[in-house]
Amino acid sequence: MTQNSENTLKVANQAFTYFTHGLATGEWQAFLDMLTEDFTFWFPMGKFHGLNTGKERAREFFQYVSASFNPGLKLASLDRITSNETTVVFEFRDEGFLLGQPYKNRVAVSFDVRDDKICGYREYFGSDGKSY
Amino acid sequence: MTQNSENTLKVANQAFTYFTHGLATGEWQAFLDMLTEDFTFWFPMGKFHGLNTGKERAREFFQYVSASFNPGLKLASLDRITSNETTVVFEFRDEGFLLGQPYKNRVAVSFDVRDDKICGYREYFGSDGKSY
Repeated sequence: MTQNSENTLKVANQAFTYFTHGLATGEWQAFLDMLTEDFTFWFPMGKFHGLNTGKERAREFFQYVSASFNPGLKLASLDRITSNETTVVFEFRDEGFLLGQPYKNRVAVSFDVRDDKICGYREYFGSDGKSY
Repeated sequence: MTQNSENTLKVANQAFTYFTHGLATGEWQAFLDMLTEDFTFWFPMGKFHGLNTGKERAREFFQYVSASFNPGLKLASLDRITSNETTVVFEFRDEGFLLGQPYKNRVAVSFDVRDDKICGYREYFGSDGKSY
């Protein structure tokens, strides 16, 4: 593993800790502070479907997520972490309520790292939101 | 990178080549030959939703995929490959027809490798099948 890969993994792990904290509590500031200004993200569905650009768009998105999944999404298990020099993929399961209905999903998020920040991520769903 | 990670990546790359060949052509035998007998896979939706166990179940699944996506799904781009000692994640986009309708998706597949075989995989969808 090169030094670069190690830093990438360290930065992504920190970001993922803040990300799951945001999902659980609605407190997103620590995660948002790790994003580059030109941050982009891809989301699978709904009003943020496709490519989204910029940190302000990210702030809107995470507020929307926390409003939808009130009172918070719990990390049920962290299944796999894989990485290379620039990218780290977290496969996990989460659990909570979506607009009041029980919700479960399997998720893969792929974080792109530049220096000590996250410059992009792609989210993928492994289930239908109802069961694993 | 340890020797193990190198072998894992090599085996998964070969399997992914056969996997995309299967998607494109409906010829799955080379991919199926790389699966362990106790192979398991997770799929996000439909009649194979959730956890599926065994090589025979995999054969049924890939026949079903090729019947649904006739005349074949084309790999439109390979976006990222990340890996560790046992697992390799491929993020890609594919394109074709689902039951005759234009189809596009972003996909992450995560292959677990044991020796020179694939012992499991998890599939995740990054879009809605209509656009990236």
